[in-house]
Amino acid sequence: MRVELEILLPGEIEGRSFEIIERELLHPLDSELAPVIKRVIHTTADFDYAETLCFSKTALAAGRDALQAGELIVTDTNMARAGINKGALAQLGTEVLCFMADEDVAAAAMERNTTRGAASMDKAALISGRPILAIGNAPTALIRLYELIGEGRITPSLIIGVPVGFVNVVQAKELIMETDVPYIVARGRKGGSNVAAAIVNALMYQLTRPQ
Amino acid sequence: MRVELEILLPGEIEGRSFEIIERELLHPLDSELAPVIKRVIHTTADFDYAETLCFSKTALAAGRDALQAGELIVTDTNMARAGINKGALAQLGTEVLCFMADEDVAAAAMERNTTRGAASMDKAALISGRPILAIGNAPTALIRLYELIGEGRITPSLIIGVPVGFVNVVQAKELIMETDVPYIVARGRKGGSNVAAAIVNALMYQLTRPQ
Repeated sequence: MRVELEILLPGEIEGRSFEIIERELLHPLDSELAPVIKRVIHTTADFDYAETLCFSKTALAAGRDALQAGELIVTDTNMARAGINKGALAQLGTEVLCFMADEDVAAAAMERNTTRGAASMDKAALISGRPILAIGNAPTALIRLYELIGEGRITPSLIIGVPVGFVNVVQAKELIMETDVPYIVARGRKGGSNVAAAIVNALMYQLTRPQ
Repeated sequence: MRVELEILLPGEIEGRSFEIIERELLHPLDSELAPVIKRVIHTTADFDYAETLCFSKTALAAGRDALQAGELIVTDTNMARAGINKGALAQLGTEVLCFMADEDVAAAAMERNTTRGAASMDKAALISGRPILAIGNAPTALIRLYELIGEGRITPSLIIGVPVGFVNVVQAKELIMETDVPYIVARGRKGGSNVAAAIVNALMYQLTRPQ
């Protein structure tokens, strides 16, 4: 194979990628949801997300309001945390927390014979305010979040529920969509820390990179 | 929908996931490659990787030898770096570096009108030894790596070439497969920092979690 590279300046690559995504989409997207869906496809090169991403009616407004109010963002992996744009966070005056590697979370998980993902949600429930929860890995975190919401112990502004995997992932997402909390969920098995970070970034860029 | 959860102990979830993956694979995998391919599917819930992951003949042995020799691992995102298992790294006496957020890399990229991904590979070329390069995001990093290999300025032990995207991603991967360097490449557009981290973890677990 003769390899031919497309010649672009660094600043042009993202725009060109979004053009390609737009061209290859099988049907037009809702204009309000499009920036989020296209950024997830940009992050994964997987057009399945055009079909599987589900948004509650108030999800985008809730996310925007929370970010403007400087609410904290909590993730279930340090990988998702690393993928969230630090410049945009600073501009919005907020930050992203992940409790997965905390010793008290490991101890609590061990004691209750649960996962660190689940135990990290108990810690998130202690945060003041109404954080955005961005779950890209552990369905057990999402299930625990569902319980904590039911018990009135946490009231997230928005749940980004995109864990990936084969055990209880599909079910955990369905549970979250039964709550009254605004959500963005990738129905099915697919998702990931990269998808969670991409959704947070897309929401932030609506505020920090106005068109 | 009535949601029914599968009841498992935390330590059983990964094994159960791998069982499901094995059962749903359309054809049996090469037994040597299977642990890597299955871990990538576990990370993405995307069975496409059973078809797209390409391994040069000596890739697994080269990766194993490099890890046993304590060679450094270099990634092109802090997200991939965050996803690589710190316990396994410590057990192997090595570490993972990422230069993307370094000020000298940003300055070099600006000066040469290139991406930080590409400039970070120039910095990787200054490392002593023969690092493992794990590229999950920037095709420009992979293209620069190809040039540096051609100029004899870097001799990686192994290239994990799994950037994701729409501009020069397919081509960059084909270029790497033309070199003499051992590689693991996800042919096509798909890949990601999560995939790069999963492959590094799969290689490490072969040494740190003997069957």
